[in-house]
Amino acid sequence: MDIGELITAKKALFDEYLLAYLKSTWSDSGVFDAFSYSLKAGGKRIRPVLTMLACEATGGNGSDALPAGLAIEMIHTFSLIHDDLPALDNDDLRRGMPTCHKKFGEATAILAGDALIFQSLSAICSSDYPSEVKVDICSAMADICGTGGLVQGEYEDVMAEGKDLPLVKIEEIYTKKTSRLFELCMYSGARIVCNDHALIRPLVDFGRYLGQAFQAIDDILDVTSNEENLGKSAGKDLAQDKATVVKALGIDAAREWARNATERAVSTLEKVRDERTGTLKELALWMLQRVM
Amino acid sequence: MDIGELITAKKALFDEYLLAYLKSTWSDSGVFDAFSYSLKAGGKRIRPVLTMLACEATGGNGSDALPAGLAIEMIHTFSLIHDDLPALDNDDLRRGMPTCHKKFGEATAILAGDALIFQSLSAICSSDYPSEVKVDICSAMADICGTGGLVQGEYEDVMAEGKDLPLVKIEEIYTKKTSRLFELCMYSGARIVCNDHALIRPLVDFGRYLGQAFQAIDDILDVTSNEENLGKSAGKDLAQDKATVVKALGIDAAREWARNATERAVSTLEKVRDERTGTLKELALWMLQRVM
Repeated sequence: MDIGELITAKKALFDEYLLAYLKSTWSDSGVFDAFSYSLKAGGKRIRPVLTMLACEATGGNGSDALPAGLAIEMIHTFSLIHDDLPALDNDDLRRGMPTCHKKFGEATAILAGDALIFQSLSAICSSDYPSEVKVDICSAMADICGTGGLVQGEYEDVMAEGKDLPLVKIEEIYTKKTSRLFELCMYSGARIVCNDHALIRPLVDFGRYLGQAFQAIDDILDVTSNEENLGKSAGKDLAQDKATVVKALGIDAAREWARNATERAVSTLEKVRDERTGTLKELALWMLQRVM
Repeated sequence: MDIGELITAKKALFDEYLLAYLKSTWSDSGVFDAFSYSLKAGGKRIRPVLTMLACEATGGNGSDALPAGLAIEMIHTFSLIHDDLPALDNDDLRRGMPTCHKKFGEATAILAGDALIFQSLSAICSSDYPSEVKVDICSAMADICGTGGLVQGEYEDVMAEGKDLPLVKIEEIYTKKTSRLFELCMYSGARIVCNDHALIRPLVDFGRYLGQAFQAIDDILDVTSNEENLGKSAGKDLAQDKATVVKALGIDAAREWARNATERAVSTLEKVRDERTGTLKELALWMLQRVM
């Protein structure tokens, strides 16, 4: 199985798990309808796939990482729903479909995003993980998703619109808004299996660099691809004058930047000295191919 | 010390703890500034006080409940920030000060509310509680704050505007948007001390009825009080045609409704057969006095 097929298989496993979870937690509620719509809208599922691969890279069974992967995909989806709101990025299209607030109205979309955070917490707490593992994952989630990462990154991203930021600041925004959730994937997937800092640390570092590469690739595609391929409005970054590596460096140097981040990600894996990290390396290179 | 003085003392203890916590977690961030502003704006702190009293009613030391009480006050504040947004209740004034979005802008207020949820999770996870207690409180929080309670209640509250709902439906909305968080106070405060279902269950039931009474009292005051006393816009419910017991029953019968809910709350305490619940009873009667 090549890496593309492997990712497709893991994505299918996750989608099946997600649908079963939504069925088992169904609630007669407009809020549930709204966040289910956004959750089911798809996307690449790169975060749950990464969580499964991190679990496998430390010797675990990938499917054991499904509850953690689900929680992280819910966090990711919450952040998309809120980022798309008129007060933030004001996006009408996401994953080829109307954004949550376009479909359900702004009040419902705000509340659907809120509810997803609690749903994510529920996915962790209702899992079979030992209490210590649940607490460590929740603790990492709290650290990574608030002012230390995701939400702060989105804030800085919005505030950076129209400004000429130095590259180091753009890298910081990428790290907060994208990399830290990738770090959470790596941490959670590995923490389910072990509590060995020497093993977990390089995997988390891999997540950080991979997240930077991922965001750069996303921003390059925003310029080079079209709406049909992206499943979301293309050219938005330029229109909103977003702080991206493409804006700072131009397309060619942005590709080089993404390649460097990918190489840094791959080189951290050497510290793990385990052949099971081979898939993570392939994943990083496969992602980069999207813009090369 | 009478009940009013006792509540004032507990509130002071909480406010001191909150300020120390904010200082120790300070972050150079507009999101942190925004949620700190709303957290520090004050209010009655009834939820952390209740959490401390629940802890004492089961034989614990009230100050041990401060991390849980802080987490719940953060959840409460997140819900206020989001409820006040233009797309929801569109309120300009809260606790005598401009609402979060009026002061910091809508994008920042949305993100500040989001960050507070994660901050709340952090308050639990970074506490000294045993792992099992942390997981049980997080689990209850996930259950109570999402589609099973708080967020769903706010959704139904917004959707109910302009409609003539039967009393039973209004009671359901009160339960979701207010009572369930009061239940979380009671559960968390007691769970820190013990895991005795026979003791915790009636305390949680007390929280449910007390929350109903509290919401009815709040809605009565919205009509009978003025902006200066309330610290928020008065007469808003009427202007927005909100579903309240006042709208359904009129002021006098609404007072009676609040009294009945208070009596139900007090009578659940009899199942605990412990003199330490005396303070909870006094609290319930003290709250009711605000509208009698």
